[in-house]
Amino acid sequence: MGEPKQERAVKTREVILHAAAEIFDECGYSGASISKIMARANVTQGGMYFHFKSKKGLAQAVLAHQQEFVHFPGGTAGLQRLIDLNFFLAHELKNNVLFRASVRLAVEQGEFGMRDDTAYQEWVEQFHAHLCVAREQGELLPEVSEREFANVLVGAYSGTQIFSNVSSGREDLPDRLAALWRYLLPGIATPQARARLRMPANARGLAA
Amino acid sequence: MGEPKQERAVKTREVILHAAAEIFDECGYSGASISKIMARANVTQGGMYFHFKSKKGLAQAVLAHQQEFVHFPGGTAGLQRLIDLNFFLAHELKNNVLFRASVRLAVEQGEFGMRDDTAYQEWVEQFHAHLCVAREQGELLPEVSEREFANVLVGAYSGTQIFSNVSSGREDLPDRLAALWRYLLPGIATPQARARLRMPANARGLAA
Repeated sequence: MGEPKQERAVKTREVILHAAAEIFDECGYSGASISKIMARANVTQGGMYFHFKSKKGLAQAVLAHQQEFVHFPGGTAGLQRLIDLNFFLAHELKNNVLFRASVRLAVEQGEFGMRDDTAYQEWVEQFHAHLCVAREQGELLPEVSEREFANVLVGAYSGTQIFSNVSSGREDLPDRLAALWRYLLPGIATPQARARLRMPANARGLAA
Repeated sequence: MGEPKQERAVKTREVILHAAAEIFDECGYSGASISKIMARANVTQGGMYFHFKSKKGLAQAVLAHQQEFVHFPGGTAGLQRLIDLNFFLAHELKNNVLFRASVRLAVEQGEFGMRDDTAYQEWVEQFHAHLCVAREQGELLPEVSEREFANVLVGAYSGTQIFSNVSSGREDLPDRLAALWRYLLPGIATPQARARLRMPANARGLAA
């Protein structure tokens, strides 16, 4: 008896989170409301309050699950994987409303009184892991600090997607990312690694 | 008779803008209100409505004057000037409430239904001008596009200050900027130029 009830609760929670992401994505934090989200999710007040007590709680849940919302397929390793991940995230920002809303809430979190860098730090960890593989593969210059560069890249990436969003609704994000990487690579990668690295075909820039 | 009245109006407008910046800086857009700003500026409703009709109009005015709020003293030229300007802006973000509020509104503008990249584009123009001087001075590598790199730098800078703000209230911004520049310089500057460039003393990183 317990099983199906629990499954239903998990499913309801997912439906609510998805509806919340859609509303936050469309209206921002201050324009969103519990009642709008309930209507979009088609859940009762009881169903909503079993999972979430407030709009802020909903925003925190959408913000907190940023990494779970993206599923990056396996393939390459090291620097090429880090580059591929960067372009994959650009694609997800256009097509994945849960991820896009989560990023928007992370950027605009001051609007609901938060100052939490967890979402940023999780990307630092993930970028750092790929840089450690790059180091093992001999792709990084000796003077590069994997942790420092992971921090630099998270900051640079965040601002690049924000600028691209206000400029073009993120249409030009692949081109902006290709340019960012083109200027960063000479400072981090060996000439041999740079000669092998490729930017995705939908970006106009080139790695080398 | 007209002169003093006009002067008084200009002064009142400045007082209102400063009060609006303080309130937006403290409360964000949605937490701010015309009445809070009137109280802070110590102006009457008549005085306020002569200059600004709405909270959104006030936010747009604070956002629109970003460049006027910072007064970068003259001195160096070319790449060193661009680096010095970047660190000067980090200092201003901590100490100049008009600039800080303007940047916050530019980042969180989605919250009041705007998507305007003017503030970003004005920095592209200013960075571009310094890069053109750097080109004339022979500091840039041949493959660098001054306009493209100005765009890359505005994006990278924006995200770096946002990440620094949520991580440390911008305490670590000089260090993050020094790291960003350290990884960017090999991709844009000649070895001779890099040997001459210096990061400000309050940042732990080094240019070369």
